[in-house]
Amino acid sequence: MIKVGIVGGTGYTGVELLRLLATHPQVQLQAVTSRKEDGMPIADMYPSLRGRVALAFSAPEKAKLTECDVIFFATPHGVAMAQTPELLAAGVKVIDLAADFRLQDTAVFEKWYKMPHSCPELLKEAVYGLPELNRAAIKDARIIGNPGCYPTTMQLGLAPLLKAGVVDAGHLIADCKSGVSGAGRKAEVAMLFSEASDNFKAYGVSGHRHSPETVEQLGKLTEQKIGLLFTPHLVPMIRGMHSTIYARLTKELDNAALQALFEDAYKNEPFVDVMPFGAHPETRSTRSSNMLRIALHRPNDGDTVVVLVVQDNLVKGSAGQAVQCMNLMFGLEETTGLMHVPVMP
Amino acid sequence: MIKVGIVGGTGYTGVELLRLLATHPQVQLQAVTSRKEDGMPIADMYPSLRGRVALAFSAPEKAKLTECDVIFFATPHGVAMAQTPELLAAGVKVIDLAADFRLQDTAVFEKWYKMPHSCPELLKEAVYGLPELNRAAIKDARIIGNPGCYPTTMQLGLAPLLKAGVVDAGHLIADCKSGVSGAGRKAEVAMLFSEASDNFKAYGVSGHRHSPETVEQLGKLTEQKIGLLFTPHLVPMIRGMHSTIYARLTKELDNAALQALFEDAYKNEPFVDVMPFGAHPETRSTRSSNMLRIALHRPNDGDTVVVLVVQDNLVKGSAGQAVQCMNLMFGLEETTGLMHVPVMP
Amino acid sequence: MIKVGIVGGTGYTGVELLRLLATHPQVQLQAVTSRKEDGMPIADMYPSLRGRVALAFSAPEKAKLTECDVIFFATPHGVAMAQTPELLAAGVKVIDLAADFRLQDTAVFEKWYKMPHSCPELLKEAVYGLPELNRAAIKDARIIGNPGCYPTTMQLGLAPLLKAGVVDAGHLIADCKSGVSGAGRKAEVAMLFSEASDNFKAYGVSGHRHSPETVEQLGKLTEQKIGLLFTPHLVPMIRGMHSTIYARLTKELDNAALQALFEDAYKNEPFVDVMPFGAHPETRSTRSSNMLRIALHRPNDGDTVVVLVVQDNLVKGSAGQAVQCMNLMFGLEETTGLMHVPVMP
Amino acid sequence: MIKVGIVGGTGYTGVELLRLLATHPQVQLQAVTSRKEDGMPIADMYPSLRGRVALAFSAPEKAKLTECDVIFFATPHGVAMAQTPELLAAGVKVIDLAADFRLQDTAVFEKWYKMPHSCPELLKEAVYGLPELNRAAIKDARIIGNPGCYPTTMQLGLAPLLKAGVVDAGHLIADCKSGVSGAGRKAEVAMLFSEASDNFKAYGVSGHRHSPETVEQLGKLTEQKIGLLFTPHLVPMIRGMHSTIYARLTKELDNAALQALFEDAYKNEPFVDVMPFGAHPETRSTRSSNMLRIALHRPNDGDTVVVLVVQDNLVKGSAGQAVQCMNLMFGLEETTGLMHVPVMP
Repeated sequence: MIKVGIVGGTGYTGVELLRLLATHPQVQLQAVTSRKEDGMPIADMYPSLRGRVALAFSAPEKAKLTECDVIFFATPHGVAMAQTPELLAAGVKVIDLAADFRLQDTAVFEKWYKMPHSCPELLKEAVYGLPELNRAAIKDARIIGNPGCYPTTMQLGLAPLLKAGVVDAGHLIADCKSGVSGAGRKAEVAMLFSEASDNFKAYGVSGHRHSPETVEQLGKLTEQKIGLLFTPHLVPMIRGMHSTIYARLTKELDNAALQALFEDAYKNEPFVDVMPFGAHPETRSTRSSNMLRIALHRPNDGDTVVVLVVQDNLVKGSAGQAVQCMNLMFGLEETTGLMHVPVMP
Repeated sequence: MIKVGIVGGTGYTGVELLRLLATHPQVQLQAVTSRKEDGMPIADMYPSLRGRVALAFSAPEKAKLTECDVIFFATPHGVAMAQTPELLAAGVKVIDLAADFRLQDTAVFEKWYKMPHSCPELLKEAVYGLPELNRAAIKDARIIGNPGCYPTTMQLGLAPLLKAGVVDAGHLIADCKSGVSGAGRKAEVAMLFSEASDNFKAYGVSGHRHSPETVEQLGKLTEQKIGLLFTPHLVPMIRGMHSTIYARLTKELDNAALQALFEDAYKNEPFVDVMPFGAHPETRSTRSSNMLRIALHRPNDGDTVVVLVVQDNLVKGSAGQAVQCMNLMFGLEETTGLMHVPVMP
Repeated sequence: MIKVGIVGGTGYTGVELLRLLATHPQVQLQAVTSRKEDGMPIADMYPSLRGRVALAFSAPEKAKLTECDVIFFATPHGVAMAQTPELLAAGVKVIDLAADFRLQDTAVFEKWYKMPHSCPELLKEAVYGLPELNRAAIKDARIIGNPGCYPTTMQLGLAPLLKAGVVDAGHLIADCKSGVSGAGRKAEVAMLFSEASDNFKAYGVSGHRHSPETVEQLGKLTEQKIGLLFTPHLVPMIRGMHSTIYARLTKELDNAALQALFEDAYKNEPFVDVMPFGAHPETRSTRSSNMLRIALHRPNDGDTVVVLVVQDNLVKGSAGQAVQCMNLMFGLEETTGLMHVPVMP
Repeated sequence: MIKVGIVGGTGYTGVELLRLLATHPQVQLQAVTSRKEDGMPIADMYPSLRGRVALAFSAPEKAKLTECDVIFFATPHGVAMAQTPELLAAGVKVIDLAADFRLQDTAVFEKWYKMPHSCPELLKEAVYGLPELNRAAIKDARIIGNPGCYPTTMQLGLAPLLKAGVVDAGHLIADCKSGVSGAGRKAEVAMLFSEASDNFKAYGVSGHRHSPETVEQLGKLTEQKIGLLFTPHLVPMIRGMHSTIYARLTKELDNAALQALFEDAYKNEPFVDVMPFGAHPETRSTRSSNMLRIALHRPNDGDTVVVLVVQDNLVKGSAGQAVQCMNLMFGLEETTGLMHVPVMP
């Protein structure tokens, strides 16, 4: 049994980890920290866990995290990097669901996250936790920077095209739409039901933190310079993410060849589903599961390929992907504890 | 392995059965019938099942239902009773998610469902599939009438009070609220998103089919004559049911004693959660799980007890309860395949 | 032109007042105060008002409220009573959308609102602003305590029955459901989209502030002692309120006579619509309008009458009713500026 | 007073016309036809109109449409063109909210709408009813082809750029998102609440009927050949449309100059609001009003301008625009009856 601790279990990625880990057959949950809620039974905050998670939140200093095998950080940016050196020294692995270990370039990190990086020396060994593109490194990693939700869709939607060198990497457009849970469990007026319901808007159009991470990773797949225009939008739904990606073809390629690029790339992937050419994936077809689905279009038989990608932003976009990484790091079957059938309707 | 067939797999209770049975460790899915969709892969209609359910729908006559161990009917009222005699004769058990086997009184059935009952001789052996009140009979049953969604909440919310004889059974009020999936997957204008969203209404206030079934079952718990005022409402959410039940106390009873009635009644029940006195259960705390939660209130320390009951109408209110019955009928652990942690948020 | 000031224009009742007053032909908007947003154009906070409301928020001390004819308080409880004496002295009328002037009994006020009442001497002249039951007094009032949203539905739904003396006033039940905007524009976790969407729950079952106000007002309609069990619920919709009211008949009365009680009571009311007996009013049929609709039911021809009442909680339940009062106080046609057709769908 | 008839008043554009016309000071509603609902009071279908619209639906042959001044067709494609010749002959003007008179090229019409055009000779005089680009012609028109909802946003979002010749017209991308009411009031499974709620998807990615209309109209604004990639998506909200438009700049232009293009183009337009550069318009800021809002972005100071456009698809995107055209055709102030303040929240 893997002894697991969670730092910051009160947010949505924290409770989603708890939902997944509560039924994971190889996991023993040791501690869930929250300074503010020290002593409160977790199930009092999340009644969905009544009878399923018996632990109470504990203040970090009481949590004996160094006795765990792995710690998930479901915290704001900056928390994981402060604690990681001590955990590593104690032989504990770290999976950070925030951004502390996503970017190799500390200058870029500091520009976008407005804080100095406290352990740049560890960045080099940190592994970007996207199994479909990085599986081998994840297996050997001590530190995982779990990908952002949007970046997961953009990378898996673009990787086959960039690797094959068939699109103009300098003019990529990703028009992305996310459910509201992506904003987390913070009390903000803009995320109130009465504000976000029956409404649709773009946000962060002039620049969003998920951009540099995506550009850095996509850059590994091609020698072209990456130019990415990323536009996030807020959808009045709790979970779900839909990315509509536009890439201009630079090589003659018929639709069957395009489709084959994706089918070949993902044919052994348990959590990537390449749908038939021309399909319209719905976010709900992945709800509460670790599955990501992709479909390709080529409108008017023109020179632009449109890639549609859907996932549950809290699962494949966050907590599920983190568990997938944990499975790999501990030599388990990658799908262990992650085979939930999507809840649809 | 239990060989399972589903008649009518295209509706919401059908796909929910598929979701649950796809990961049930003791079930082998043999056939899912749909005359209209004969030959269509099930996963084409429900992409949530891609990679998880390989079967195609088959026309009933091709489905070899008599070779199954049990058939679930997720069909309109009237279908199950037509096929049950033949299935029983072949040694196949039947679980009907519609109303054909819920009511013992055929006159009542015919009044509310506007059709003659085609096998009244089988009604006597049909068992009402509410395990918490009827477990022993279910274990031995060949035919299960799976309870309606509203009746499940009303019965489990009222049973401890009626059995203890502490309330006026003649003036019960159940003000119930259901998510829209309760109306099924029928193309009806009133259930369109643009009609049902951002809206709330009562319906069937003057009389609803779930009333006679509830009255018949509640009558078994008390010698008083049941008087039930049941008011259903439509909530703009997909899943979830909340019943607010009002019962006038006829005996002096303090809150601790009231609470004890419920805790004692359900202390060994895996799918009934009695919350602390005064709690406010939320429907989402049961979403996609087979759990039902109850909390008690006694406003102003008056003579009326208010019982709040929540469940997922498609799981404990329908498909999950049916699987719970199947587990009992085949001697399995009652919770097999039903331990999903609710998806919240 | 009536010179109008609004204290506290940043919340939902404030912006709703602005929406209504912006097109009111007899109103000149003088000032909208907000200490926090002093100087910010109102339309920057509410882009719906771009080009329609040119004012900026002003700090209270700059707002010259004493030069207005009437001030609306769309503030938390306690603010209006602090400023009313000075305004009255300057000849300014006051309409408070909070609770400061709703309750005549200061002990009750202080018990429920946890603050002393700062001007109990003014309570006697304060008028409860429900025009359908209190029109004459409103016309002459200097201070209006604008009714709560729930109390409006409960009073208009029960008044004809209580006045006629045909129901048991000691055992009334009001099972009420409100859209989320009723909770206001406060940043609270429980009101986040990801918490309140796709969910339904009761709250405040053991006691809610709208109860004493309703009991006090209902008491004026009958000599019986009022016993009211009021259960509020939260519906995942922005606007709308639905009250399902249960009253036990104490006199023989057929359905036509019941219906006549209501039709007679409201036949001249511009904002109360008595629908045909047995109808199911939908909240959306009143969306964004000042209309309230009522329908009666008598299930199983039993001894309980069920009254269904719907309104838009922000209009007839708050800002619209306040404008209706203003019209009366200034001798205008009562419907002036309030004849919006509901937005449906 | 303008005598108005509506053909096909049972759908969402029909009821929205009724909402707007019921308070239009210069309109007298003469007839609303529906063969199926002949004789049914309109307010029985739409209780929002109780007390506001006294008419009943009438069968077309009883409706005396030729005695009206103008007929709105809120019907499926193909109905208006069948009746227009007779109406014109009787001196009645026609405003078609469907596609019969939107496309000048009958071959294109027939390809996309799968029906022959029954009066191609009238197409030449038909005027495309987008006042901001076509005002003079509308004033003199007898026949209006009212624009589609998506095309309205795409044209008003692109017109200033195309007229100024500063973007590559051959590679325009419009990633558009619509509320569900755009699908109309048809009983379709895909539009059920339980399907469309808590979900997001693209549709018609390989080709949508609003594309040819947009291309034809945009072609009038530039000598470049139009290449438009239009991707519609379905948002779980009733009303609202958000278009995210990407255009590659072909001339050096700073942000102030870009902004000036739009502000100059629309400075006298009552229903187009150019927001500050970098703003994020929300659909709800236009809810139930005829306003359309635009904001510009230029991410990373790159070569692509992103234009965000929002409107209420049923108002500026349909019924409101039709009334705006009517006002122009009858010499009224263009804003008459259309100055509703958006309902927000």
